[in-house]
Amino acid sequence: MSSFETISQFSRMLTNLDQWLQAGAAYAEKKGFDPDVLAQARLAPDQYALVQQVQSACDAAKYAAAYLSGQKAPSHPDIEKTVSELRSRIQTCVKYLSTFKASDFAGAEERSVAPPWMEGHAVRGEVYTTRIAVPNFYFHVTTAYAILRHNGVELGKRDFIGVRSWTDFSA
Amino acid sequence: MSSFETISQFSRMLTNLDQWLQAGAAYAEKKGFDPDVLAQARLAPDQYALVQQVQSACDAAKYAAAYLSGQKAPSHPDIEKTVSELRSRIQTCVKYLSTFKASDFAGAEERSVAPPWMEGHAVRGEVYTTRIAVPNFYFHVTTAYAILRHNGVELGKRDFIGVRSWTDFSA
Repeated sequence: MSSFETISQFSRMLTNLDQWLQAGAAYAEKKGFDPDVLAQARLAPDQYALVQQVQSACDAAKYAAAYLSGQKAPSHPDIEKTVSELRSRIQTCVKYLSTFKASDFAGAEERSVAPPWMEGHAVRGEVYTTRIAVPNFYFHVTTAYAILRHNGVELGKRDFIGVRSWTDFSA
Repeated sequence: MSSFETISQFSRMLTNLDQWLQAGAAYAEKKGFDPDVLAQARLAPDQYALVQQVQSACDAAKYAAAYLSGQKAPSHPDIEKTVSELRSRIQTCVKYLSTFKASDFAGAEERSVAPPWMEGHAVRGEVYTTRIAVPNFYFHVTTAYAILRHNGVELGKRDFIGVRSWTDFSA
């Protein structure tokens, strides 16, 4: 899959994540609890809460698009506290991702990528995508999904994949 | 990333998953509980337990390799009940994945893929990989990781990514 396809898929998954948050808010309303309790829920005391899982998923997608296209990523400060604010954060990220064209990623697989947290090391764009960006992105979206499922939100694998009918995937 | 790179990465992640299971067994021994309690642990009553998450991760990788290369997948029956048996299942799958060469995936992106659960529909190999196989694979490995973290097993993001030093990724 091309870098453009990878970024397009991150965008689709963020849109799915937004739907899971919407389902979480609807579940809270139905059960009569504050939906923002979910925003602070986590699976282990030393793991990120839902807020940071969503912020990290957005940043994983944003930085992958920026690094692979050789652009500077815009700043999206981690200020969200509520499910509603998290949904806005996702929209901001998806809007940024939508600014990329396939041609922006020309040569991305061979581009040298050196994120600041990689301690001065650099890797090829393909290695960065396959072994770091994709697993890291799915780590955060899946953990966000797991936090919601653990708290009773009614979601299933089709919501995760984002499929209503398989004919949607035939295009 | 090529189909061969995708399958190679699945193999790396399964090897990481094996390490997390090993850490789970070590944690059980340290705390003095039966490690196979972890095998039956789950995050929600209507979600798969660790046993099925590992089986599903293996199957996601196995079927992706088979479908994208036009081969028939071998049968790996879901008979595991213990952490030790799950580790053997992973080894069986990784060994199968290691039989593939890059040339086995020639034309994979354009190949028509129609898994039985896709209700008679078929999708292009690239769509299958990007929108179904990769998210499905990471769903199961991340949920397996989350089950272990939720139960106190000491793991971190570097264990998930499978990095000791970033120089390992420079090759």
